[in-house]
Amino acid sequence: MKNFEEIIMQRDQKLNTDEEFMSYALHLATLAAGRTSPNPLVGCVIVKANEIIGEGYHHKAGTPHAEVHALRQAGEEAQGATAYVTLEPCSHFGRTPPCADALIKAGLQRVVVAMQDPNPRVSGEGISRLRKAGIQVEVGLLAEEAEKINRPFLKAIQTGLPYLLYKAAATLDGKIATETGDSKWISNESSRRLVHELRNQLDVILVGSETVLKDDPALTCRLPEGRDPVRVVVDGTLKIPLTAQVLTASTLSPCIIATSLAAPQEKLEILKGMSRVEVWQYPEPRQVPLKQLMCDLVIKGWNSVLLEGGGGLAGALFNGGLVDEVEFFLAPKLIGGTGPSLLSGLKIDKMAEAIPLKLKEISLETGDLRIRAKVLNRLANC
Amino acid sequence: MKNFEEIIMQRDQKLNTDEEFMSYALHLATLAAGRTSPNPLVGCVIVKANEIIGEGYHHKAGTPHAEVHALRQAGEEAQGATAYVTLEPCSHFGRTPPCADALIKAGLQRVVVAMQDPNPRVSGEGISRLRKAGIQVEVGLLAEEAEKINRPFLKAIQTGLPYLLYKAAATLDGKIATETGDSKWISNESSRRLVHELRNQLDVILVGSETVLKDDPALTCRLPEGRDPVRVVVDGTLKIPLTAQVLTASTLSPCIIATSLAAPQEKLEILKGMSRVEVWQYPEPRQVPLKQLMCDLVIKGWNSVLLEGGGGLAGALFNGGLVDEVEFFLAPKLIGGTGPSLLSGLKIDKMAEAIPLKLKEISLETGDLRIRAKVLNRLANC
Repeated sequence: MKNFEEIIMQRDQKLNTDEEFMSYALHLATLAAGRTSPNPLVGCVIVKANEIIGEGYHHKAGTPHAEVHALRQAGEEAQGATAYVTLEPCSHFGRTPPCADALIKAGLQRVVVAMQDPNPRVSGEGISRLRKAGIQVEVGLLAEEAEKINRPFLKAIQTGLPYLLYKAAATLDGKIATETGDSKWISNESSRRLVHELRNQLDVILVGSETVLKDDPALTCRLPEGRDPVRVVVDGTLKIPLTAQVLTASTLSPCIIATSLAAPQEKLEILKGMSRVEVWQYPEPRQVPLKQLMCDLVIKGWNSVLLEGGGGLAGALFNGGLVDEVEFFLAPKLIGGTGPSLLSGLKIDKMAEAIPLKLKEISLETGDLRIRAKVLNRLANC
Repeated sequence: MKNFEEIIMQRDQKLNTDEEFMSYALHLATLAAGRTSPNPLVGCVIVKANEIIGEGYHHKAGTPHAEVHALRQAGEEAQGATAYVTLEPCSHFGRTPPCADALIKAGLQRVVVAMQDPNPRVSGEGISRLRKAGIQVEVGLLAEEAEKINRPFLKAIQTGLPYLLYKAAATLDGKIATETGDSKWISNESSRRLVHELRNQLDVILVGSETVLKDDPALTCRLPEGRDPVRVVVDGTLKIPLTAQVLTASTLSPCIIATSLAAPQEKLEILKGMSRVEVWQYPEPRQVPLKQLMCDLVIKGWNSVLLEGGGGLAGALFNGGLVDEVEFFLAPKLIGGTGPSLLSGLKIDKMAEAIPLKLKEISLETGDLRIRAKVLNRLANC
């Protein structure tokens, strides 16, 4: 199977096969990465006599679905054509009418679907409605790729928890600072740029209060066309200063401070009065219940979380089985010594009980060693 | 340029070009890896009418050179043929007569040489002698590969110091043990097998006394056809027990204990009396002068050193600029916490002063992430 990105790289070449058309639909879907939550990414391509006569993707929750964009473009030509859709067409009235009906009405002859929609309101119903109308339906083409681009949506709908990606930079020997605490810079500029691409694509960025106290980041996305993620700070005792950039930075994205009963009342009130700042106070003595916080993010409609830095917070999330994947940027250099390493907050006594990873992607394109891996330990459920 | 290993993989295919014949000669040379010190690895192929009529490689110091093996096989056919040699043929009488003369005598028409011999006793003299005899000589084909296979020889002859490879296994977050000290096992069985291949190919294996006290390794090579490296333990105060496996293991390879004036006299005498154990006592109060030790290994005719484990010793060797390359086996798992990391003995205060590496090879064949990198800091000279 070709990677769909590879196929798209050669877009001047004419697309010919079912797999190529579906690859292109997947590519279209990803154009809205980070924009559609709580909805999934969906792309659609309509083909007649081997020519694309309509294409589209879902841009944002509440706006038309991918099929609608593609059908509008195809117009009456859609009669007798084939549609490639990366996710089963919906069969229910949400904020938009059901796409299965629109495809039937347009007179499609054949619909190729990458994967069934696990949403209990759809789950096979869209496909069966198409079949009942006499449309030839095939399901499962490039299903693995389709699942990959919608990991956040799928995890959220299946578990009530968000997809959580832990991103960290370290030296090749795992150090995030020298013994004296110096940490600038570990990774190179290209790697740091990639981090902003992640901020642009995931719904939420999550840090601990230690990171705010130490680095005072704004946690915004500094790409020209980027959008800022929702920023969440875990701060059980409200230690971060009122002047922290995360509170004062110029952005439309909210900043949520998750805290506990240990939060001083006066500071809490001041924070609540700040614009675009929300305080979520959990009824726990000192700690923020992380699993509950994660569930609450999904309830708000945010399916994906980028965890940046904070060895303590990261350790606690790993201990809670809440981390899905890691993305490490390992700089080709050595620091040694006894300074802090990645994941200092993790407590594991036996090597045999280490958290197992499955390596997914390794790349040297930035000059740093970039490693994407899946966390294999048991994941929590809400 | 094709990798010579790739060419050899397809050895059933007929070799045709200069590059392919030289690749094959390089491959022959590596068959004696770890066996020829202080001599270089050398391979030779003799070709006539596109057929290989003689081939050979240098097996061991004191035995015939590669050219002699190949010429013997070719016999009178060598008249008018082309020879491919991975290193300039020697021009001096050592333990064997000069190969340049043998090639002239055999009536070769053309000699292709991968690289000039930096040995001051040869250094261009062999090539010029061939040319004076009317032989067509070409120099530089696959020179980079030829240098690569002879890194230990080249470094030793140019600097008086051995090529030093630091091998270590850690988790992906750089940990070599948990907080409670548990370290079994970090890397998987295939990776551990590869370590024995390194032991089989490098002249010397080097560890600190801490490693002997903690793990009590025999430091032998456990491959069926392997040979044991010379074993060197850095132990300034003679802390290792007389029952240590490194002293008692059944092997023909010597075990050298490098120590200082702080060595207790009685224990020193007992060690000296043990079979195959040598004690090198340096006139320093407590520390073993590492650079001097390295130079002494080259003087003994050992050009390559495999440094295994011992964060303290490794740190000191890095600080001394004595390390050429690293080979890390990073297991796809996370331990976190504050347990020991790689290179605990290294002291660097500023991230900007980290030891820079150049990544050379990355492989996942063992299931662990195997990384070979060159150390870019200034190397010491004897």
